[in-house]
Amino acid sequence: MTVQDRVRAAYAQLALGERPEAWITLRPAEAVFAEAEAVAGRLAAGETLPLAGKLVAVKDNIDVAGLPTTAGCPSYAYTPVVSAAAVQRLVDAGAIVLGKTNLDQFATGLVGTRSPYGAVRDVRDPARVSGGSSSGSAVAVALGIVDLALGTDTAGSGRVPAAFQQIVGIKPTYGVVPTSGVVPAARSLDCVTVFARTLAEGREAVAIMSEPFPADAPLAAPPQPVIAVPDRDELLHMSEEWLDAFERAAKTLESAGARLRPIKLAPFLAAAKLLYEGGFVAERYAAVGAFIDSLPDDVDPTVGAIIGKARDIPAHVLVADTERLQKLRDEAMAEWGDADALLLPTAPFHPTIAEVTADPIGVNARVGTYTNFCNLFGLAAVAVPAGIGVQVITRGFADAVAADIAALLVGPEPAVPYSAGLPLLVLG
Amino acid sequence: MTVQDRVRAAYAQLALGERPEAWITLRPAEAVFAEAEAVAGRLAAGETLPLAGKLVAVKDNIDVAGLPTTAGCPSYAYTPVVSAAAVQRLVDAGAIVLGKTNLDQFATGLVGTRSPYGAVRDVRDPARVSGGSSSGSAVAVALGIVDLALGTDTAGSGRVPAAFQQIVGIKPTYGVVPTSGVVPAARSLDCVTVFARTLAEGREAVAIMSEPFPADAPLAAPPQPVIAVPDRDELLHMSEEWLDAFERAAKTLESAGARLRPIKLAPFLAAAKLLYEGGFVAERYAAVGAFIDSLPDDVDPTVGAIIGKARDIPAHVLVADTERLQKLRDEAMAEWGDADALLLPTAPFHPTIAEVTADPIGVNARVGTYTNFCNLFGLAAVAVPAGIGVQVITRGFADAVAADIAALLVGPEPAVPYSAGLPLLVLG
Repeated sequence: MTVQDRVRAAYAQLALGERPEAWITLRPAEAVFAEAEAVAGRLAAGETLPLAGKLVAVKDNIDVAGLPTTAGCPSYAYTPVVSAAAVQRLVDAGAIVLGKTNLDQFATGLVGTRSPYGAVRDVRDPARVSGGSSSGSAVAVALGIVDLALGTDTAGSGRVPAAFQQIVGIKPTYGVVPTSGVVPAARSLDCVTVFARTLAEGREAVAIMSEPFPADAPLAAPPQPVIAVPDRDELLHMSEEWLDAFERAAKTLESAGARLRPIKLAPFLAAAKLLYEGGFVAERYAAVGAFIDSLPDDVDPTVGAIIGKARDIPAHVLVADTERLQKLRDEAMAEWGDADALLLPTAPFHPTIAEVTADPIGVNARVGTYTNFCNLFGLAAVAVPAGIGVQVITRGFADAVAADIAALLVGPEPAVPYSAGLPLLVLG
Repeated sequence: MTVQDRVRAAYAQLALGERPEAWITLRPAEAVFAEAEAVAGRLAAGETLPLAGKLVAVKDNIDVAGLPTTAGCPSYAYTPVVSAAAVQRLVDAGAIVLGKTNLDQFATGLVGTRSPYGAVRDVRDPARVSGGSSSGSAVAVALGIVDLALGTDTAGSGRVPAAFQQIVGIKPTYGVVPTSGVVPAARSLDCVTVFARTLAEGREAVAIMSEPFPADAPLAAPPQPVIAVPDRDELLHMSEEWLDAFERAAKTLESAGARLRPIKLAPFLAAAKLLYEGGFVAERYAAVGAFIDSLPDDVDPTVGAIIGKARDIPAHVLVADTERLQKLRDEAMAEWGDADALLLPTAPFHPTIAEVTADPIGVNARVGTYTNFCNLFGLAAVAVPAGIGVQVITRGFADAVAADIAALLVGPEPAVPYSAGLPLLVLG
């Protein structure tokens, strides 16, 4: 398939009008076709463009030069002249940006409903949420409109929608992918993430966006990795069916050669609660609080309530929470011990839009049970579909280990549906 | 001189009754003599004890097993059963603790007057302050009662009193000397420091207390170090005489082979102001705020006002200041460039006790002009007498570079007055 054909296929898919709320801005078709011609020309001239023929959707809190960045709030919008470093690296490798996607406003949410551009609906069951905050990006990939999409992940925003949309979501270690050109949610925790239908495509995109890893970062999982897996009674908020599915995912790893061992989740879950119930929310106020105070009526009421409340958190609470977090991390890492990875559900359940509307903060908090602690502890995670969505979590900079173990869960992947980057396929 | 003779000399000096306010707790003489006998016995048995015959005073916010830790506040006192790691390492090397020294309460101050145990007076001019917060430790060394004293340094507490008492004060890079067993002032910034009459003695003590340095830490200054020296008009709050003295110190380095180059201090001084005028004071409230709130009448009024005010600082201000600090550090390090060290006055002037009483917060703030930024930027510093007190500041973990350049300022040092640790001297 040529680059131009890939773009045509995307527009054919878009024309079906599925989940239009996934998009905030679509680029003009002529500009996208012109760029496809240019990429095809570069390929013909012999350039190596590993992402040629890949279409990308970008979460609308990440800058793309010339397109407005709204962060899900129309009156916050600005139009950057420079793309975020992460976007630019994909474009340099031949990828083409199709547009900007909907999100929980200011990336504050795990549901996908907190947006004046519309609640993003699940691809399979429109009564359910897409997951968020990178709602539109996950849906655009799940629908096959794009090959790759960028999200961000502070509390779980790059993994929860991957779980609900049954696609791959890769959350690299904090700092590995630059966040320049990203509207901060909680600056000390924000990560740029990738959604893809296949793990291979996601890994390639992350590799292209990443800074060099530390020299001692592991390059692969060991042949018989040790995986920490919590017992059924350690897991909160899950139905019997979801618990069964989680156990089957663990057994899949065991069948593939992994050695499983139990782990207690208490320090992990205590840290997860700190993210929204303590001082760390002040980072969100520091990022956009002045804007929210100046135009309170322009803000989603749930998002405004969460960030507005953070105005009054005293600094000494943040200091104490930072110290508490360090202790919890020490406890958690003692539990972790010599495990190569931790297997967890990505989310404990998949709520309906009605459930979220009835209790917007409570349901959201429970959805984040297993994702919230990750960035606080500096860990890497790869979310994959395995019956339910599960995540393979590793220590910081062991991103390759997480992806290798995740590969055991997804098994052999289908051939990439669209590819123009490899000369063989261009010729074929 | 034997270990026992060293102890006798200390008690003879103590009996003169100079600056008794330097001490909060002196150990019972019998216990100290018994320990001297034990150290002498270990030496006679062939043990290598590099600090045998050295007496140490310990700032009373650092635990010594069996002695109360007051942090300068009688009702805060507790008696630890374990010594601080830094103290234990000195004792293991043969040093003997003589007692605990006065300080600005909760290590909050640079003057030495903020203590219910008395304002500590300068050794030469009793109308002037000793400097603080490690007031008693500096005075105990300056009087020759002890060979070494431990202080702490968050804003300059290990350097300012060294400057005023015309002794050496070494502030290692944050994290190099463990702070376990130290009452926190601002936990993310606190360093344990050493006072000594000679640089050689101070360096030896720091080396014994230190964790291993990173593998790429420089081990020595280059033969012709590049020293950044601010022009006269960059320096605030200094008299012509003090400016002249500072320039002479710079010339001394030049004569010893250093290459001087100018530097702008704006980002350094802006960061210094952040320490007490922004969100970072909240760390002090997190450390002892609950105690102060419970017993407000037991607290020094100035210290209580500073820490109490920090109760109401919002967390988002701390977040914003943390980000501002990072920008200021980038700017400062761009100014710093390829310099091996930065030469600065340790303090801009030496106030009288009356001046501090008249304006306790303002005078203290001006005293810290050149010390406050150091720990915020993760730098190392060695304060030495050179006409006025000056500091050689280096990047983090370049502690050896700072000490080597400081050695150019102090020149050849007198033979150590008391030493039993080296076999030759024991025999001699």
